[in-house]
Amino acid sequence: MSKGLPKRSEDYAGWYNELVKKADLAENSPVRGCMVIKPYGYSIWEKIQSGLDKMFKDTGHTNAYFPLFIPKSYLSKEADHVEGFAKECAVVTHYRLKNDENGKGIVVDPEARLEEELIVRPTSETVIWSTYKNWIQSYRDLPLLINQWANVVRWEMRTRLFLRTAEFLWQEGHTAHATREEAVEETIRMMNVYAEFAEQHMAMPVLKGVKTESERFAGAVDTYCIEALMQDGRALQAGTSHFLGQNFAKAFDVKFATQEGSLEYVWGTSWGASTRLVGGLIMAHSDDNGLVLPPRLAPIQVVIVPIMKGKGMEPEMLEMANKILNALREKGITVKFDDRDTHKPGWKFAEYELKGVPVRLALGPRDVEQGTIEIARRDTLTKETVSAEGIEKRVKDLLDEIQNNIYQKALKFREDSTHEANSLEEFTEILENKGGFVKAHWDGTAETEAKIKEMTKATIRCIPIDNTLEEGKCILTGKPSKQKVIFAKAY
Amino acid sequence: MSKGLPKRSEDYAGWYNELVKKADLAENSPVRGCMVIKPYGYSIWEKIQSGLDKMFKDTGHTNAYFPLFIPKSYLSKEADHVEGFAKECAVVTHYRLKNDENGKGIVVDPEARLEEELIVRPTSETVIWSTYKNWIQSYRDLPLLINQWANVVRWEMRTRLFLRTAEFLWQEGHTAHATREEAVEETIRMMNVYAEFAEQHMAMPVLKGVKTESERFAGAVDTYCIEALMQDGRALQAGTSHFLGQNFAKAFDVKFATQEGSLEYVWGTSWGASTRLVGGLIMAHSDDNGLVLPPRLAPIQVVIVPIMKGKGMEPEMLEMANKILNALREKGITVKFDDRDTHKPGWKFAEYELKGVPVRLALGPRDVEQGTIEIARRDTLTKETVSAEGIEKRVKDLLDEIQNNIYQKALKFREDSTHEANSLEEFTEILENKGGFVKAHWDGTAETEAKIKEMTKATIRCIPIDNTLEEGKCILTGKPSKQKVIFAKAY
Repeated sequence: MSKGLPKRSEDYAGWYNELVKKADLAENSPVRGCMVIKPYGYSIWEKIQSGLDKMFKDTGHTNAYFPLFIPKSYLSKEADHVEGFAKECAVVTHYRLKNDENGKGIVVDPEARLEEELIVRPTSETVIWSTYKNWIQSYRDLPLLINQWANVVRWEMRTRLFLRTAEFLWQEGHTAHATREEAVEETIRMMNVYAEFAEQHMAMPVLKGVKTESERFAGAVDTYCIEALMQDGRALQAGTSHFLGQNFAKAFDVKFATQEGSLEYVWGTSWGASTRLVGGLIMAHSDDNGLVLPPRLAPIQVVIVPIMKGKGMEPEMLEMANKILNALREKGITVKFDDRDTHKPGWKFAEYELKGVPVRLALGPRDVEQGTIEIARRDTLTKETVSAEGIEKRVKDLLDEIQNNIYQKALKFREDSTHEANSLEEFTEILENKGGFVKAHWDGTAETEAKIKEMTKATIRCIPIDNTLEEGKCILTGKPSKQKVIFAKAY
Repeated sequence: MSKGLPKRSEDYAGWYNELVKKADLAENSPVRGCMVIKPYGYSIWEKIQSGLDKMFKDTGHTNAYFPLFIPKSYLSKEADHVEGFAKECAVVTHYRLKNDENGKGIVVDPEARLEEELIVRPTSETVIWSTYKNWIQSYRDLPLLINQWANVVRWEMRTRLFLRTAEFLWQEGHTAHATREEAVEETIRMMNVYAEFAEQHMAMPVLKGVKTESERFAGAVDTYCIEALMQDGRALQAGTSHFLGQNFAKAFDVKFATQEGSLEYVWGTSWGASTRLVGGLIMAHSDDNGLVLPPRLAPIQVVIVPIMKGKGMEPEMLEMANKILNALREKGITVKFDDRDTHKPGWKFAEYELKGVPVRLALGPRDVEQGTIEIARRDTLTKETVSAEGIEKRVKDLLDEIQNNIYQKALKFREDSTHEANSLEEFTEILENKGGFVKAHWDGTAETEAKIKEMTKATIRCIPIDNTLEEGKCILTGKPSKQKVIFAKAY
């Protein structure tokens, strides 16, 4: 059953790259750092989009759309923000091409230089807050709860399909509130929405926590995040939710008249999740045979493969297959009936295994005679022959079971891969031999965090929101610490 | 009932601009030519997207995503294409900003100049066909039926919200086929999909036809289109579908092995519709009181306004309103219950009229006593008091009736605004005094078309696909013509 995939245990990075390509999820484009998301990969993203979009709307948000370009001067208005984003952005300087006078083909027209350069948005806080200034006058205009689905560009030097690309697709929520409390509440609400989506839809357990200052969003007062663990023991930040305080309101002079009549700066949040989630989904569950997709996000939940002898299908087999197909569709299950006679059943089995289709039904001549069907599950690679009677109910239950099993497996992996370190030696030993999340005391300074990163490549992923407070000593400096924090090497 | 809108008869352009702003659809952004699509406007776009997306999927297409940027050299590979698009594009030349050494703030880092400039996609044929080269080897890989939802940029000098903006949102389908016949069939199929969407969802009648050479897409062999008529008698191109022949296959060397074993160039199509449709929707139906939205695209189909005396609602009124609300929702109708006590009923009536909500239900104390309710329709501005019993059925039927009535009204307008001209004098007279579509004989040359445009500002919108052939003489040159074509001044 070789798919030509490297084994995870031998070459995890190679396994990931090959899997993304062979399963038709994405590929590199002719533009450095930008990817092409292929139809199968995009259909997973569409499921992620529709799941998140519903959750955003259920929590009172509406969608809108803001410009792709940001005037250069806007980026500079929030001091931390420009530091974080100016170093890796695409800059539009001209608005026309022309034929070269010396016959060198098409060139940039030097006369079409923009007065002020435009930045392709790396994130939209600045252009959105400059717009909010006109939308918000009084407390009656608050809260303003808006989300945007968009593409953004960050000029990364080292890119990997889905995980880190120059252009990526994402959603960015931008909300404005009358009080600090309300804005903090919103920030935490959206972190919880991300966590619920990751666990319920992606079957990917996550830690919820707060970032340290060094890992905070450029311009935020606090960054909340969800952190998942990949099968190679490295962490993946899967969504962030930022409490912006009044930073952007001050930078763009966004004030509101309170109910009492005074003028105050607005409180803000922003939160985002991206096509990176597709990378996380792949790395959290898939195996050496290919993708393992949770049923809730699988573009095809069930495939029916008829086992045909020679050419064409017996009418009885076609009839039975169609009956099952319709019964499954009536249950709201997404089914593909692969009756192509250009490919053999064995080829199809391998193909759908590679593509991570959760359930495969196979139907041979004997099944037609006996009223049975073979049912195989992708997560455990097990199969059995069962009565075709009531198969739709059985499949529906099995999809729920697979969704839960994938989650439980990932949860157990995370639990087995979470360790405590009480000394720097222990810390280093765990990171080198086991990987995973390491809980350790830290003195709370950026210097210590930087030194530990330099020594071990591990960063503080988060300070869990439900952390137990306990007295201890920093593993590096021995200085007092009030809680263990979560370290890991990360994507 | 003044909304501060100019009257259509006095200032059509001003009416449109004000309506777009006052109805919270969109506004200009700080970036020249780029718009902000506000939540209410975006929710109309979401309905357009989901309607079209379903139709694309039902006709066998899948979505994918290709890069925002196109290498400059790609744009030049198809000769006509570069002529059409190089003159109005945003050019990325650098990938980093830095702090100015002389303290002038943030500047473009001259050391971060790209080796080859990148163009922000004005349309994606080039980058997609360069990708298709790797995806297509044999006839088994065909047809390839892909659509993309994306933003594109064309550096327009004169922009108008929705109708013509530098950045706009759209979908672009790009398909590849083994034969010319199949590609032509696809081109026509997608023109028909657009026409069906325009008529069934947007309630906007359209002419289906073929463009003349001068109006053809840069790089196409034939451009099919749908053309709608706005209330000021000007035409709006609402969707185009291009038969690309083998032009892009040749430019990007995309060949396939036929079933017989020879190597041939692939045949292509591309087709697109954009946020311009929102502009068309507004201009096709709305009146001096505000938007008139067809129920199938209205973000809110029904609003319930309680007529409260003094502060708060009587429990009986609340109970009755909730009962109606639930009954409507069970019918799949999108309802808003506006029980705010911060605004008076009259204010709300005007607001929902401006926003084009198709049906308004109002509920006063006497209605609660008598079991009645006032039902008002936006399209005719009529209202009546009816029994609240079975109101959900009545509303559902009314929504269908409104959808149909809006379409019939627009159709009658188009019929009344379509004229035949048998001489240049007649032609000019109609355009000056009546506007609308003008059918006239044309000698088939680009020169004549250009002269007529220069003299009258009217262009040939299309040669209708179901045109009657008849001998005649060109209104300008008197040369022989085989059919009348459709002229109009256009957006």
